[in-house]
Amino acid sequence: MTETVKVLPVNVLQQFMQDVFVGLGVPADEAAISAQILIQSDLFGIESHGVGRLKMYYDRIKNGQHRPVTQFEIVKEAPATAVVDGHHGVGMVIGYKAMNLAIEKARVYGMGSVAVRNSTHFGIDGYYPLMAARAGMIGMSFTNARPSIAPTFGVQPMLGTNPIAFGCPTDEANPFLYDAATSITQRGKFETLERKGQPGKAGWVTDQQGNFLTDASEVLKGLTQDTAALLPLGGAGEDLGGHKGYGLATIVEILSASLQGGAFLHALTGITPDGGKTHFQLGHFFMAINVESFTDLDSFKKTTGDILRALRASRKAPDQPRIYTAGEKEFEKEIEVRQTGVAIVPKLQQDLLTMRDELGLTQYQFGF
Amino acid sequence: MTETVKVLPVNVLQQFMQDVFVGLGVPADEAAISAQILIQSDLFGIESHGVGRLKMYYDRIKNGQHRPVTQFEIVKEAPATAVVDGHHGVGMVIGYKAMNLAIEKARVYGMGSVAVRNSTHFGIDGYYPLMAARAGMIGMSFTNARPSIAPTFGVQPMLGTNPIAFGCPTDEANPFLYDAATSITQRGKFETLERKGQPGKAGWVTDQQGNFLTDASEVLKGLTQDTAALLPLGGAGEDLGGHKGYGLATIVEILSASLQGGAFLHALTGITPDGGKTHFQLGHFFMAINVESFTDLDSFKKTTGDILRALRASRKAPDQPRIYTAGEKEFEKEIEVRQTGVAIVPKLQQDLLTMRDELGLTQYQFGF
Repeated sequence: MTETVKVLPVNVLQQFMQDVFVGLGVPADEAAISAQILIQSDLFGIESHGVGRLKMYYDRIKNGQHRPVTQFEIVKEAPATAVVDGHHGVGMVIGYKAMNLAIEKARVYGMGSVAVRNSTHFGIDGYYPLMAARAGMIGMSFTNARPSIAPTFGVQPMLGTNPIAFGCPTDEANPFLYDAATSITQRGKFETLERKGQPGKAGWVTDQQGNFLTDASEVLKGLTQDTAALLPLGGAGEDLGGHKGYGLATIVEILSASLQGGAFLHALTGITPDGGKTHFQLGHFFMAINVESFTDLDSFKKTTGDILRALRASRKAPDQPRIYTAGEKEFEKEIEVRQTGVAIVPKLQQDLLTMRDELGLTQYQFGF
Repeated sequence: MTETVKVLPVNVLQQFMQDVFVGLGVPADEAAISAQILIQSDLFGIESHGVGRLKMYYDRIKNGQHRPVTQFEIVKEAPATAVVDGHHGVGMVIGYKAMNLAIEKARVYGMGSVAVRNSTHFGIDGYYPLMAARAGMIGMSFTNARPSIAPTFGVQPMLGTNPIAFGCPTDEANPFLYDAATSITQRGKFETLERKGQPGKAGWVTDQQGNFLTDASEVLKGLTQDTAALLPLGGAGEDLGGHKGYGLATIVEILSASLQGGAFLHALTGITPDGGKTHFQLGHFFMAINVESFTDLDSFKKTTGDILRALRASRKAPDQPRIYTAGEKEFEKEIEVRQTGVAIVPKLQQDLLTMRDELGLTQYQFGF
């Protein structure tokens, strides 16, 4: 291990993640799906949800909170809908199969949705709508998560970062892709900041007195110990719409839990009442809308592209060089990362070495 | 007309609105639907979208921007989806019928959705999910609107307030009901503030230099003249997540326009290039998810109620007496308004008298 940031090529890192999953007992095809979803996060520059989380999956599979072999069971089905039990398997595999099921239903009926129970952390929420967009459909994906957002006027972490992801095809090189927590920022961001030794911004997190917390380590500790909470999109109180972000987080919790009779809020901590580790019991909700059931796919793509181009071409605030639309930054980052590789900070280098050595993956000489 | 606020009983006001629509040539059953949707806004205490907008509908039907008789045409259909052309009829009637169509499809296939083109302003977005919730379903409703929100890093009003509405049944007296613009606040709020002679809050609206505007009349003038813009949920820039609110507004624009080959952004002003008045060509997207396709309705209601009760019971910030969940304030307000009646400010009194006199509805003696 070095004390400086190192870079690994994308293909090496993706293969390594796949081999780690196989080493943990994940079947080869499911390990490939999992690595594919994690590397997409690194390609998009979302450091919090890619290789930076590999050790988390590794630890959880080793300690039994995630099962390496995924039993994907459809427990209830209607023409356009299904309920799936993931039996605590690999979240990425559960998510991938559930979104494919929604897409298949949408192809026949115009739209489809799948509610999932007993799942585990499934990587970036945005990967799943991307699958739908590539199939010529609108895709949406929602998941609950460990409690971290405080309700408006509250200070206790209650709701997960509960992201909303939405993607669809356009007539441009890349889909429109929105993927965002319903909090202002999220836990993974603080994990990244902690690795870099940087603070967060005022307004993102509240302590128990209603004051803002910025130190990344204190925030992560507080979120775990129930003494700090993320603020919802819109911020504290109602003046700037904090109740709207809080309401959106609640919607995601309902979609993710209520349709599948699943766990919610503090039942998602992965901790038993006596302090032991248990399954996370996460819930997800996936939706696919088949564009061609409504209109010609090219027409949809053009209208969507026209909307995005008009937004980007609109008048900018003084000193602002550019207006973006959702997904642009990420797809541009992907081009860069494919050329330069993925930056690995020292703390993460140690994690990679640990997993390599423990699994005997001696073919990997990372150069750190 | 007086110079003080007066109060009218709910049933009188609802009947008056219905009679105004009939007087304009709207068929009796469709006038009843329209008045029912408008009065729900007043019952909820949302002054911007109830009787406060009656004169707007009145003027638009009289000048031909809305047609009094609604031709509701299904132009394309798949098992779980439909595209409807509203032919510039009454937005409330189009919305009501479209949501019912989505509910019918959800009853058979598990979910249903309907994209609408050539519609007009349809009242509060939240009315339509309420219909689904009463049918034991999750309902969602989206609409685009005249340009008013600036993209992140922009200052030009481009996107409508583009609300998201979501409702579902619970085991409590009332459904969960979320209905919110994707901007921090919305045009109707400034219409209400202007009637009351009050300013908005700093952070809600930007001028062309990127400074905040608060004067309600200036804001309304600026929105129309393209010189002021609402800021998206999350505010200016990206620090507090403004790009998330902007992204959500874009999603609503795509759902409302791209699936039905419809108009979008600046084509929704209702103004022709030479300054004349034309149809608004609004688009909507309605969705219904049949709970019983996924799980037992009572189970869904209990899980949802448990989530809401846990949120309300969580730790409050110092000096905060209460934590709400979405819809609570509105349903409590409804109980109050049914007892006390609807407050009518002086400017609105004049509007009511004008419509009454022009339509010869001499049976109404308002007491102002």
